[in-house]
Amino acid sequence: MKQTAVSKIAEMNGKEATVNGWLYNKRSSGKLWFLIIRDGTGILQAVVSKNDVAAGVFLDCDRVTQESSVQVTGLVHEDRRSPGGYELQVRDMRLLQIAQEYPITPKEHGSAFLMDHRHLWLRSSKQTAILRIRHEIIRACRDFFDSNGFTLVDAPIFTPNACEGTSTLFETDYFGEKAYLTQSGQLYMEAAAMAVGKAYCFGPTFRAEKSKTRRHLTEFWMIEPEVAYLDLDGDMDLAEAFVAYIVRRVLKSREQELKVLERDTAPLEKISAPFPRLSYDEAAEMLKGQSTGFTYGSDFGAPDETLISGKFEKPVLVHRYPAAVKAFYMKKDPKDPSKALCVDMLAPEGVGEIIGGGQREDDYDTLVAAIQKHGLPMEPFEWYLDLRRYGSVPHSGFGLGIERTVGWICGIPHVRETIPFPRLMHRLTP
Amino acid sequence: MKQTAVSKIAEMNGKEATVNGWLYNKRSSGKLWFLIIRDGTGILQAVVSKNDVAAGVFLDCDRVTQESSVQVTGLVHEDRRSPGGYELQVRDMRLLQIAQEYPITPKEHGSAFLMDHRHLWLRSSKQTAILRIRHEIIRACRDFFDSNGFTLVDAPIFTPNACEGTSTLFETDYFGEKAYLTQSGQLYMEAAAMAVGKAYCFGPTFRAEKSKTRRHLTEFWMIEPEVAYLDLDGDMDLAEAFVAYIVRRVLKSREQELKVLERDTAPLEKISAPFPRLSYDEAAEMLKGQSTGFTYGSDFGAPDETLISGKFEKPVLVHRYPAAVKAFYMKKDPKDPSKALCVDMLAPEGVGEIIGGGQREDDYDTLVAAIQKHGLPMEPFEWYLDLRRYGSVPHSGFGLGIERTVGWICGIPHVRETIPFPRLMHRLTP
Repeated sequence: MKQTAVSKIAEMNGKEATVNGWLYNKRSSGKLWFLIIRDGTGILQAVVSKNDVAAGVFLDCDRVTQESSVQVTGLVHEDRRSPGGYELQVRDMRLLQIAQEYPITPKEHGSAFLMDHRHLWLRSSKQTAILRIRHEIIRACRDFFDSNGFTLVDAPIFTPNACEGTSTLFETDYFGEKAYLTQSGQLYMEAAAMAVGKAYCFGPTFRAEKSKTRRHLTEFWMIEPEVAYLDLDGDMDLAEAFVAYIVRRVLKSREQELKVLERDTAPLEKISAPFPRLSYDEAAEMLKGQSTGFTYGSDFGAPDETLISGKFEKPVLVHRYPAAVKAFYMKKDPKDPSKALCVDMLAPEGVGEIIGGGQREDDYDTLVAAIQKHGLPMEPFEWYLDLRRYGSVPHSGFGLGIERTVGWICGIPHVRETIPFPRLMHRLTP
Repeated sequence: MKQTAVSKIAEMNGKEATVNGWLYNKRSSGKLWFLIIRDGTGILQAVVSKNDVAAGVFLDCDRVTQESSVQVTGLVHEDRRSPGGYELQVRDMRLLQIAQEYPITPKEHGSAFLMDHRHLWLRSSKQTAILRIRHEIIRACRDFFDSNGFTLVDAPIFTPNACEGTSTLFETDYFGEKAYLTQSGQLYMEAAAMAVGKAYCFGPTFRAEKSKTRRHLTEFWMIEPEVAYLDLDGDMDLAEAFVAYIVRRVLKSREQELKVLERDTAPLEKISAPFPRLSYDEAAEMLKGQSTGFTYGSDFGAPDETLISGKFEKPVLVHRYPAAVKAFYMKKDPKDPSKALCVDMLAPEGVGEIIGGGQREDDYDTLVAAIQKHGLPMEPFEWYLDLRRYGSVPHSGFGLGIERTVGWICGIPHVRETIPFPRLMHRLTP
């Protein structure tokens, strides 16, 4: 099946080419049919002239329906008026399958309808553009760490213990034992960093949260670097270099797709390191007298994050939250032990948190005390404590949520469009 | 924490450098200590001369234990006798944490003991080498498809239906519904291929098989390409080009790690396209009179695969198995409808199947009949049938299991060492 991808059609200018695709749209003007063909790599206008083709082919142009599969063969030539700048003068067409009446039409559809037809909705130019940007973001994530001396160390999905309570964990029967689906690979990456120095994992993570917000999926992808001999400042340097790199890559490689999404790229052009850094106390100061209902000492809610990040054109790094609202493994700030050496990155344009991380507690006794203080059982953490028994070092890391990052860069307000087959509280299909 | 990675130490020849790492080994000769330091990127010999350092530093050399964390600073100079060819003449050393007696010593340990200490075992030079080769294989997989016009389309992990029976599925409670962990992203990739032409997914997959063989994990990673307008022959071309590329990449980029594993690379050097192709009938002929217990018409067992692949120096593509032993979505061979247009790739050196795939049934009526014939419910497949209602095209794909591929290329007989934190029937920790 010798074929030319529409994205490569320019290389065939002046030559005959065969394009395999699907009918996206068509119109007729008497002795001419203009067929708009999509093949997954682009859109091509194929012109069928009654005089150039067999009679059956011209009749097929009449009966071919939206999303029918077609093979068109003809001469490629430049044409400025065509979408993409090239046109195919059709010599022959093969109609593989005539599609039934396609459920997704140019008219407005409700989001529930589109989500029910996600397997077809992905064919739309907007959804395909998001898929391609998502792919580019994931490539950029990997390339950044791969070219900076990191080793990919996949974290397990099945974890044996519900260390911090089962309320947001998915549980499964594991040959008679209970197993839980991972919420983060971090503890495993800490072990990996002690083996390879710089490690990262990248895979799906799971939260059984009963949230129906535009920011929550039950299944989402996260990339988590962890570095031995790195402190909080170094961690923030790494996070900002990483995010700036991702944005640059998408701007450079996915210009066309951003256009399809009508994304205003001006805010993205401003994203370069360094990013502003605020302590929790400084951020809390900003919320004084605001109507978000924030009280000092608590974690920021979505409205707080929106308000804080709204003050900046770049992502903002908020560090040193109260230790009491953060996980047990966070290292305390030696200058103020009521604070943790942690950091969240809040993306601009109302997106909110895309990164959470920080420096981990590396002292054995302090970590044991923290586990006890949080009322957690010790036994499941024995292996994790081994990392402090055998050559403990200062180390830091973070996790970046892919879907929120895709949503931010694409300018898509709801995460359900940022992953091919989204899983939400009330959405397990298709 | 300005530091030099051991892998980059040559760049610091003649200059002062600080290396952050862990003590791998040490020996003394009176006024000298030879400390072997690992930092995750390599091994460096640091020489401490009593006359060059403060008295406390020299005493620290005596008390530093295996896997203690140390920062050493000194002059880098070339030394052929040193591992890696460079040596550090230590001026100062900081002992961060003195490790307790390290459980993994150069003596032989049983595999259960090592698996219980997987979080530490990863630090050994052999396990680190496997991690790096695994990383390179995964990069090669992605690079191959990324540079051949494929779009990454992540398949969901949660799937709504136990279409083909629940016996090997992990089940979870999904807000009151039942959800199952994916065994393959294929059906979703078929939808994706109709949207983007060439798609692939790459993620963890799950099988609740009560198998305790050296080939089985409950959680393993699979990469699954799917291509619109591709037939079985094209699928086999793609699979062999893909596997040949992976092997070449590892040979080129991970020579050092293959040496650490004492892998005989001669068999790998022979892996180039084309690979031998055999029909099921031809393969079955080879098994005649052998003691594997094979009967014509059934699927091949592990001993059959070993025997067949043992006859070739390259991976062998076995195609056109009896349709009766294959999944309902396989397209039948028009020349012999008792056979499916499927293909398995069997790797040499006794490894067996690393790829399974084939051409999918693209005709609506034939697919409906196949679903009925297999006694499967129709409703869960309605979305999948949509792909045949709206622009059906010939299409093919396959899945490659990462862990078996890592095992083959590394020459590691048991898959438990091919993934950082293996999950087996009786292994859910650490």
